[in-house]
Amino acid sequence: TEQGHILFLPGDGIGPEVMEEVKRVAGWFGARGLVFALDEDLVGGAAYDRHGVPLAPATLEKATTIGTVMFGAVGGPAYDDLPFEKRPERGLLALRKELGLFANLRPALVFPALAAASALKPELVEGLDIMIVRELTGGVYFGEPKEVTSLPDGQERAVDTQVYTTSEIERIARVGFELAQKRSNRVASAEKSNVMKSGILWKKTVQRIHDTEFAGVELAHVLADNCAMQLVRQPKQFDVIVTDNLFGDILSDVAAMLTGSLGMLPSASLGAPDQHGRRKAMYEPVHGSAPDIAGRGIANPLACISSFSMLLRYSFERGAEADMLDRAITRVLDEGYRTADIMQSGATRVSTSEMGSRILDAL
Amino acid sequence: TEQGHILFLPGDGIGPEVMEEVKRVAGWFGARGLVFALDEDLVGGAAYDRHGVPLAPATLEKATTIGTVMFGAVGGPAYDDLPFEKRPERGLLALRKELGLFANLRPALVFPALAAASALKPELVEGLDIMIVRELTGGVYFGEPKEVTSLPDGQERAVDTQVYTTSEIERIARVGFELAQKRSNRVASAEKSNVMKSGILWKKTVQRIHDTEFAGVELAHVLADNCAMQLVRQPKQFDVIVTDNLFGDILSDVAAMLTGSLGMLPSASLGAPDQHGRRKAMYEPVHGSAPDIAGRGIANPLACISSFSMLLRYSFERGAEADMLDRAITRVLDEGYRTADIMQSGATRVSTSEMGSRILDAL
Ligand SMILES: CC(C)[C@H](C(=O)O)[C@@H](O)C(=O)O
Ligand SMILES: CC(C)[C@H](C(=O)O)[C@@H](O)C(=O)O
Repeated sequence: TEQGHILFLPGDGIGPEVMEEVKRVAGWFGARGLVFALDEDLVGGAAYDRHGVPLAPATLEKATTIGTVMFGAVGGPAYDDLPFEKRPERGLLALRKELGLFANLRPALVFPALAAASALKPELVEGLDIMIVRELTGGVYFGEPKEVTSLPDGQERAVDTQVYTTSEIERIARVGFELAQKRSNRVASAEKSNVMKSGILWKKTVQRIHDTEFAGVELAHVLADNCAMQLVRQPKQFDVIVTDNLFGDILSDVAAMLTGSLGMLPSASLGAPDQHGRRKAMYEPVHGSAPDIAGRGIANPLACISSFSMLLRYSFERGAEADMLDRAITRVLDEGYRTADIMQSGATRVSTSEMGSRILDAL
Repeated sequence: TEQGHILFLPGDGIGPEVMEEVKRVAGWFGARGLVFALDEDLVGGAAYDRHGVPLAPATLEKATTIGTVMFGAVGGPAYDDLPFEKRPERGLLALRKELGLFANLRPALVFPALAAASALKPELVEGLDIMIVRELTGGVYFGEPKEVTSLPDGQERAVDTQVYTTSEIERIARVGFELAQKRSNRVASAEKSNVMKSGILWKKTVQRIHDTEFAGVELAHVLADNCAMQLVRQPKQFDVIVTDNLFGDILSDVAAMLTGSLGMLPSASLGAPDQHGRRKAMYEPVHGSAPDIAGRGIANPLACISSFSMLLRYSFERGAEADMLDRAITRVLDEGYRTADIMQSGATRVSTSEMGSRILDAL
């Protein structure tokens, strides 16, 4: 991991548009002494168009060397009928796996100015601040066998395999407990230990890490189906939720949707620290490539800019600058500037690049 | 499957209490010409206490012969530390699997009198009527291997296996399409075909059954994480949702919670028709055994009574009587009677057995 070096992978759809605004923000910090070396490459459909694969080996190598990636979004209708291994999202999954980005942090945060956009009643979401910690390199996403076979009677049989080892669970549990200590000191661990053997190992391992290393953190075990329910019923009961790759995929999307700020939410995917304490990491907005609005200059760049704030915080240890950027986002929203996706009556509608400019002004 | 014969398995916690009210309702119909033979046995923790297993072989045999089961709820703190194979829910899972109950129908319905109890804004849930069709005997719940093994380095490795064959997907897809034809003619099929091979087979098979047998039904494919989001964002976009065992577990809980009527919701688990057109079936409230309020006479019996209505409809082809019972439930709610779980200001609070009496009065 090279300090101060970032690889931009804008990807498809609105990815490149929102990434432009991140580059302007990076430039702003660059002009004020925070020097970045910036690199850029293709991923997803864009990489497929050029190289016939969603992640070229040279791109992966670059990502591995540089170690810090700003990822836009991948996918689009042009790629929907590609075979499994060529689909744009395989590029994303390969980056996660090959860079060892096992810890996916997804804050679900309600911006006061946008609380009214939630599907939930205001009193349930005002001030909501959940951190979902999703295991990202294991489970059913990567377990083998993963295959479709033909049966003698002409039928097909599809198999996916959920695998977790003790150490995979230990390290993600630690990430959850450490984050909780800096927040409200509460962890909920979600699994299906009533049905899945991996759930049993998950629950037992999280409990052991708690008892031996984080006894001061409040820990609750919750079944994943109940967790989904509770997120809708009373989301503010949660602080940090630690869960596996598949449950995390669903639970983090539910939590994100609750906030009413879906187009606003960032994520960070972190690897294990190396001997110098540096970790590989990838930062990515929670939203997708939104092909329906791509190229029209109306996409909301704030999720991607907010992901850059996570980059400053987690990869460059620039917490003060990250706070500054977060405050700029809040201020611009409070001033009533809105892209189309979060437009409210009485607010001022701005384009993607105008939103970028508003952020620079607010900084 | 013996016509008119029902096996009651009240189970644990509030199961026996709410089942008492179902028996009174069955008695009411019995006195009016709809003759039932009733049988009863233990399941879950109650069976464990007596037999050392959550489902005794003799009970399973009875269930298989009788073919129609009214199930209460299982589980409680006394059984939380039992080994996996002895836990109360293994009794439930064994019944589903051994009776071949592959189609789990979970209506998510908003009762007008209770719409205000939803966590969602009223306009999003008023009139909501979704039917989740969950595959119930396959997927990660039952696939092998399912095990925890010890590794040489002292670690453990847990494996669960998601398996689906073409025919398993075909039959659940047909159930979904057939139900949609009697409803709003729309099916959403939820999977993770971007990550799971079983998702690819799922999507392809549902599409084929649609094209060859149900081309008149509107079909949409939706990724399970997006489906969970959309359920929160705009639930009324859905009519029937067809999905696998694990996604169905989570999505049906989210949908149930949206209604604000969690304690009100029934479910039916159906097998394939035999040569006489009869299918084995089990009916069960969506809520659990609620050990915290068990034995206090305050549990809400309406989900269990509503499950009995599904029994009349799906096992005894008594649609008219089922409609009658459904109307009685709506009327009692409209008249303002509420158990503690759904209590609202200005309503009349009633006990479990008083609620049963109100239903009998309304019939
Ligand atoms: C695009 C897809 C493979 C991905 C996932 O399932 O992990 C996405 O849903 C996410 O959550 O980042
Ligand atoms: C009790 C448990 C095994 C069960 C399941 O996971 O299927 C429950 O959550 C349900 O949905 O009926």
